[in-house]
Amino acid sequence: MLEAIKYNNRKLEVLDQLKLPHSCTYQGVTNVTQTWEVIRSMKVRGAPAIANVAVLGVAVELNEKDFNSKEQLYEVVKEQLEYLQTSRPTAINLRNAANRIISLLSVQLQDNKLSVNDMKESDFSFRIIKEAEDIFRECKMKNLAIGEHGASHIINHLSTGSQATILTHCNTGSLATAGYGTALGVIRSLHLRGMLAHVYCTETRPYNQGARLTAFELMHDKIPSTLICDSMVAALMKSKEVSAVVVGADRVVANGDTANKIGTYQIAVCAKYHKIPFYVALPVSTVDLSLRDGGAIPIEERPSVEMTYIQGVPLAPTDMNCWNPAFDVTPAELITGGIITERGVFKVQELEKKISTDKEDGIWY
Amino acid sequence: MLEAIKYNNRKLEVLDQLKLPHSCTYQGVTNVTQTWEVIRSMKVRGAPAIANVAVLGVAVELNEKDFNSKEQLYEVVKEQLEYLQTSRPTAINLRNAANRIISLLSVQLQDNKLSVNDMKESDFSFRIIKEAEDIFRECKMKNLAIGEHGASHIINHLSTGSQATILTHCNTGSLATAGYGTALGVIRSLHLRGMLAHVYCTETRPYNQGARLTAFELMHDKIPSTLICDSMVAALMKSKEVSAVVVGADRVVANGDTANKIGTYQIAVCAKYHKIPFYVALPVSTVDLSLRDGGAIPIEERPSVEMTYIQGVPLAPTDMNCWNPAFDVTPAELITGGIITERGVFKVQELEKKISTDKEDGIWY
Repeated sequence: MLEAIKYNNRKLEVLDQLKLPHSCTYQGVTNVTQTWEVIRSMKVRGAPAIANVAVLGVAVELNEKDFNSKEQLYEVVKEQLEYLQTSRPTAINLRNAANRIISLLSVQLQDNKLSVNDMKESDFSFRIIKEAEDIFRECKMKNLAIGEHGASHIINHLSTGSQATILTHCNTGSLATAGYGTALGVIRSLHLRGMLAHVYCTETRPYNQGARLTAFELMHDKIPSTLICDSMVAALMKSKEVSAVVVGADRVVANGDTANKIGTYQIAVCAKYHKIPFYVALPVSTVDLSLRDGGAIPIEERPSVEMTYIQGVPLAPTDMNCWNPAFDVTPAELITGGIITERGVFKVQELEKKISTDKEDGIWY
Repeated sequence: MLEAIKYNNRKLEVLDQLKLPHSCTYQGVTNVTQTWEVIRSMKVRGAPAIANVAVLGVAVELNEKDFNSKEQLYEVVKEQLEYLQTSRPTAINLRNAANRIISLLSVQLQDNKLSVNDMKESDFSFRIIKEAEDIFRECKMKNLAIGEHGASHIINHLSTGSQATILTHCNTGSLATAGYGTALGVIRSLHLRGMLAHVYCTETRPYNQGARLTAFELMHDKIPSTLICDSMVAALMKSKEVSAVVVGADRVVANGDTANKIGTYQIAVCAKYHKIPFYVALPVSTVDLSLRDGGAIPIEERPSVEMTYIQGVPLAPTDMNCWNPAFDVTPAELITGGIITERGVFKVQELEKKISTDKEDGIWY
């Protein structure tokens, strides 16, 4: 399996996904400024992956620094995490991961038994680094659980004796996460159980994550698959047997409305029209209960040049006016299959209750 | 206005649309073999344009030839027209234009008053050339009528005081037809009447006719417009005010089911979900009453390389399996605005009756 993020002995490297599928090049990341840059430029992308890279970026910079007080540590790390959250606005995982680190910092700060003199021994920095590493390790385990829950749910809804044909969008695999993948994790689990007939993946214009990354991962792992253009989804649903659509998510809010890669909403509309179940697969850290509905999710708009050029080749008149939202919001009513998480598959209506029950102290990454 | 086809004094040139928007290069076409090639390679495309180029290609070759008998003329031209119909299978306009020529040839053949000795004087070849030229000239006039009828219908359904915002797909302008355009003709008419707020055009993957051609035409003619990706249609309909969708057609069958560029069906599904009227604009020569429903329309599938490469740049793993249908079928129930023709705007249910009433001798191109 491909790795988007390599982290060993407090050394961080990210796969430069802009160069895929032409070359597999890893770039070392040694500080927070570089971390912001690799996220912003989309060398690393995918809601879970950018959260992992962000906290690991803080960890590798912390590893090289000394602090005079726990207050100083708190201020520096908090500022770094706030800065990293400005890299891309739509995904919530980064904020949730940041909040988990900040919460630990606060606990340390408020613990009067820990004084400046304890600094050297207790090594507050080490605890933060350890927490970032835990986030990364847990992310991999959650992906496995998402894959297993999703595969079981889909298999239970297949007619007897048939295998699943899945349509997915964008990239939600090992390149988008810390490991197995979310939607692509579900596909991997189906494949490993011998229950996958075929996968269709969309190109995912304008950044072509499907064509460049998902196609690359599927071929790499020898999963039977076919690439289609984003415009072919309805035709595919009409002319081939599609068992289910499974996509990832950048933010799911309290009522189940889901922000994900531009084009997701359209696929959900088509799935509804063709009566095909539509699933969203995500770690619980993608859920944002602070927003009631999808209208409040900030949607990043990216530059025209991403549409008018591809790898330096002009595709359109270069001064053509473009609208380039990076995400859209799929209303809960269209998520007919369910929400696949590491804790199980929920109906959208159940999501808030299930998550709230489990949530402790506002931190559940 | 741009011209896809230049025809003067029995000289034919076509604009090589594969080179747009980077360069405007015309290629001379002097025989039927070259005509087949420019259609097949998509240097010229668009259902009405390829019909025009086909009959004009026959005309320019005829102009250089002598025939010994009307039987020989009949056989040669019929064979040429049958050959040209193998260039691309989905659009019906070419067949209808060919049938109009063949019908005239048959009339000549069966007219016993015309003998071989009359050949030099009556100049049968000239009549065929003239018929091809008539098809070309009439196509331009029909485009104007389509534009006017469509614009009036859309304006009548706008709320008072508002202008229309139109979404279109693929290229249906002067580059796809012999002149003003079909769907783009409607947009031009709205613009000329001061009733157009804005046009959104889709990229139209994988051949990018929207990005390369429609965007180019809209900018060339200073029509206010924005390019979107094919995946952004539903998001656009939700977040902007779209008054109507207007697209062209490659073949409309008796029940109103419509084959058009891949992605059209998906846009129609989205329009239905968002309660936006969906129109198809076409000359009556695009109608094929010989087929009852859209399931019988042959759908051209094109090579994977059109998806995996763009202008020589690889977009995906080069050996990735692709599904690349060039067209899809929009069921009549989704054509909620109506069918815009040179004879007026019809409801899909009215189409067959209206066309049959007018039709004479099986030829109505």
